[in-house]
Amino acid sequence: MDKPLFIKIDPKDNVAIIVNEGGLPAGTAFPGGPTLVEHVPQGHKVALRDIAMDEPVLRYGVPIGYAVADIKTGSWIDESKVRMPVAPELDSMQLGGAVFPPAPPLEGQTFLGYKNADGSVASKNMLGIVPSVQCVSGVVAHAVKRIEAELLPKYPNVDGVAYLDHVYGCGVAINAPDAVVPIRTIRNLATHPNFGGEVLVVGLGCEKLLPTDMAPPAAVSTIVMLQDEKGFAGQVAAIMRLAEERLKRLNERRREVCPVAGLVVGVQCGGSDAFSGVTSNPAVGYAADLLVRAGATVLFSEVTEVRDAVWLLTPRAATKEIGQAIVREMKWYDDYLDRGGADRAANTSPGNKKGGLANIVEKSLGSIVKSGSGPIVEVLKPGEKPTKKGLIFAATPASDFVCGTEQLASGIHLQVFTTGRGTPYGLAAAPVVKVSTNSRLAAQWPDLIDVNAGTIATGEETIEQVGKRIYDLILDVASGRKKVWADVHGLYNSLSVFNPAPIT
Amino acid sequence: MDKPLFIKIDPKDNVAIIVNEGGLPAGTAFPGGPTLVEHVPQGHKVALRDIAMDEPVLRYGVPIGYAVADIKTGSWIDESKVRMPVAPELDSMQLGGAVFPPAPPLEGQTFLGYKNADGSVASKNMLGIVPSVQCVSGVVAHAVKRIEAELLPKYPNVDGVAYLDHVYGCGVAINAPDAVVPIRTIRNLATHPNFGGEVLVVGLGCEKLLPTDMAPPAAVSTIVMLQDEKGFAGQVAAIMRLAEERLKRLNERRREVCPVAGLVVGVQCGGSDAFSGVTSNPAVGYAADLLVRAGATVLFSEVTEVRDAVWLLTPRAATKEIGQAIVREMKWYDDYLDRGGADRAANTSPGNKKGGLANIVEKSLGSIVKSGSGPIVEVLKPGEKPTKKGLIFAATPASDFVCGTEQLASGIHLQVFTTGRGTPYGLAAAPVVKVSTNSRLAAQWPDLIDVNAGTIATGEETIEQVGKRIYDLILDVASGRKKVWADVHGLYNSLSVFNPAPIT
Repeated sequence: MDKPLFIKIDPKDNVAIIVNEGGLPAGTAFPGGPTLVEHVPQGHKVALRDIAMDEPVLRYGVPIGYAVADIKTGSWIDESKVRMPVAPELDSMQLGGAVFPPAPPLEGQTFLGYKNADGSVASKNMLGIVPSVQCVSGVVAHAVKRIEAELLPKYPNVDGVAYLDHVYGCGVAINAPDAVVPIRTIRNLATHPNFGGEVLVVGLGCEKLLPTDMAPPAAVSTIVMLQDEKGFAGQVAAIMRLAEERLKRLNERRREVCPVAGLVVGVQCGGSDAFSGVTSNPAVGYAADLLVRAGATVLFSEVTEVRDAVWLLTPRAATKEIGQAIVREMKWYDDYLDRGGADRAANTSPGNKKGGLANIVEKSLGSIVKSGSGPIVEVLKPGEKPTKKGLIFAATPASDFVCGTEQLASGIHLQVFTTGRGTPYGLAAAPVVKVSTNSRLAAQWPDLIDVNAGTIATGEETIEQVGKRIYDLILDVASGRKKVWADVHGLYNSLSVFNPAPIT
Repeated sequence: MDKPLFIKIDPKDNVAIIVNEGGLPAGTAFPGGPTLVEHVPQGHKVALRDIAMDEPVLRYGVPIGYAVADIKTGSWIDESKVRMPVAPELDSMQLGGAVFPPAPPLEGQTFLGYKNADGSVASKNMLGIVPSVQCVSGVVAHAVKRIEAELLPKYPNVDGVAYLDHVYGCGVAINAPDAVVPIRTIRNLATHPNFGGEVLVVGLGCEKLLPTDMAPPAAVSTIVMLQDEKGFAGQVAAIMRLAEERLKRLNERRREVCPVAGLVVGVQCGGSDAFSGVTSNPAVGYAADLLVRAGATVLFSEVTEVRDAVWLLTPRAATKEIGQAIVREMKWYDDYLDRGGADRAANTSPGNKKGGLANIVEKSLGSIVKSGSGPIVEVLKPGEKPTKKGLIFAATPASDFVCGTEQLASGIHLQVFTTGRGTPYGLAAAPVVKVSTNSRLAAQWPDLIDVNAGTIATGEETIEQVGKRIYDLILDVASGRKKVWADVHGLYNSLSVFNPAPIT
């Protein structure tokens, strides 16, 4: 057996997590620490001292809950032993005022990207195809197969086709107050910078979501309406003709030196475990700080994984108004869940718990460290595009593929995704860098995990070292010098547009 | 110009719709009828007599609304001239008690289907692959491509792979009251009869929706969990190995003579116009009556397209309890829309209106005639499987692809889909017979429309003739003797599982 290791995060903590793969057996003694009174699985918590019933269980220096019974030193603290606290009260938090560590600008940072006519940059050179309504999906999927087989090989400078299939567009209560979310999302997906302003919109002709709402302004010629075409043959021919026009122009594009300040990078976690908050997420946070210092934009998201730690974030709002906007998004989601008879405890999956996370409070404390240490300069509603550079809270659901879809709509050029349990998640329109929280997963999935942050738990690397590796990889991937595994295999999730409104 | 034609449905009607393609110009005189005072588009309503402000506008012999101003004989009545009535009150309707036309059983009706071990029959011989969670989607899509290219050609008796991709499974409030709907839907999709009990379930390993909830009982060996496999290569190999095991067994299956009584046929309309209620839908209703007389099961659906005509349906409930169940589903949907700040008026698309439908009342009156004339013997919640044979109301949203997904979960072997504006809709797991409401669409889309019911409007065929043609085609398609256009081209919509519950 390897040397027994545990990680205690904050001096105040009365629990630590076990590092060793497979966990550690009863009787294991830690020098100057507890002796295990029972087997404790990897990533799970051990009591560092006796904890009396109703005493707080402290991790990250704060209560992640309260002991439901007396807990002896060296015991395994699984989720059944921790009573979840109530959610932080939202009306009395500190808004702004945090003191930030020095963050001198990183000057002269560049990557090799594509320059768009509107001043934005691109990390990939994709032909984007956006349906206005699901009804057209079968025809477009057929046309995309033919485009990939017959046209793409002629245009080698184009990276591929991003077909943004979605299940919205008709049979929806388009005037319901919350319908603004899916409509904005699809509209902003269509103008993703990686499509170079050349998106092709395919509509049906009788739908509620109008294709003209999706095409870039003054580009109505980019729309195919299936009801106007002569049969299936005519529909496919029309799509392929407009696709080829675009491929020709996209094929002329070349990568150029661009400032990193043009990049928008999303961060997300999925299939988290107890290592997420001590390995991958702090390393991603370090990379986020580097990006922000280089002038770039970083979006962090996942409302239900922010909710219980929001009191740590609102002081970091650059202004009181930005703090209020964070609170507004928390309240919106509280209300949304409440209307559906649920609350934030619905987050945490069986896998999270298996990975050592007792509840959403512990998960959130580990989740928010992806945001690094800087001030929050803007808050976006789901699918909105940023208007500022720097660290931005982009409110989205926490569900991986929904957060990914909404961050894409917000214009991310690349996403950094941390995972402890493992998910083969990927996005067609923008590369996803997958970071494992533990070395077990990196070894299990060598052809899916791009960065192993598990080395932080074993002391082989520091947070700063892994964070710098992630930052460097972001620039390599955005420059087309390296490919993430999802792009090597072509592994792309379906888009899942967030629709809190009813359908008819 | 062809002879001017209009269709008046009920002797009491004070409006009729124009049949002629392109509509008819001002001055057109109908022998014994009105002279048009303005151009009236095809499918749109003309006033047959003067209608005073606030007088009912009568079509199908009932008010579809009230005149917002005086309307002169021969005027075009577009949707702006009709004030929508309030929705029928739900607590005082007649439940049961209708007198039915004689419907002698059709004896000895058969088709060539596959017989399943559980006693059900199949209209296609498909390899079904169901993910428990969207996270696995990229890997499964990759494996499906390889199965289609490398394995399927070796098993010529298998019709294809139905990959039931969906965006559910994790990041969802799985204990919210309404989560029962998507969970039931996915579970019942997995046991669709066209998969012959051989479904392959692909899970991740940390998701909320457990793969064991989806596999048929005693078939846990049908599950691949991606987190248990060695990398992407191992994941794809595992899926392909289990897929081939199933393909071998499915390939041994042969079509046999089966009673039509084993068939479950769904009916739906989408992209409706004013002809829907007088051509395609009555013909489908006639076919539905024939199916029921042959002992089969017919599902009709689309709550918001039933709601305003529900008072015509509840008397047809076979028992008072069934009538109450219809009312229960209407109320559930009223509440669901109300929670989201919408009502049933959110149904009717721009295309419906362009096609002459003034509002959801007129649309509903035309929609429900797909149910034919018989008694309603059961009511299903979204995605439930029937326990009876005969005419069944399967409550679903009206959105085409959502209704299709929910009817598939209820086990339809085939769907009959009527359309006036035109949609290239199709489903991978079960054939979709597309019926056009008008001859213009049939001519515009000759390689998409399977049956033209527009001949009823022009008097070339009767409702009974077209209905019999649809019935015969249903049996030919279910027997594999004929292919619908969607199957010829492989045009399949994405599944859209109805999820009224919140996501996290």
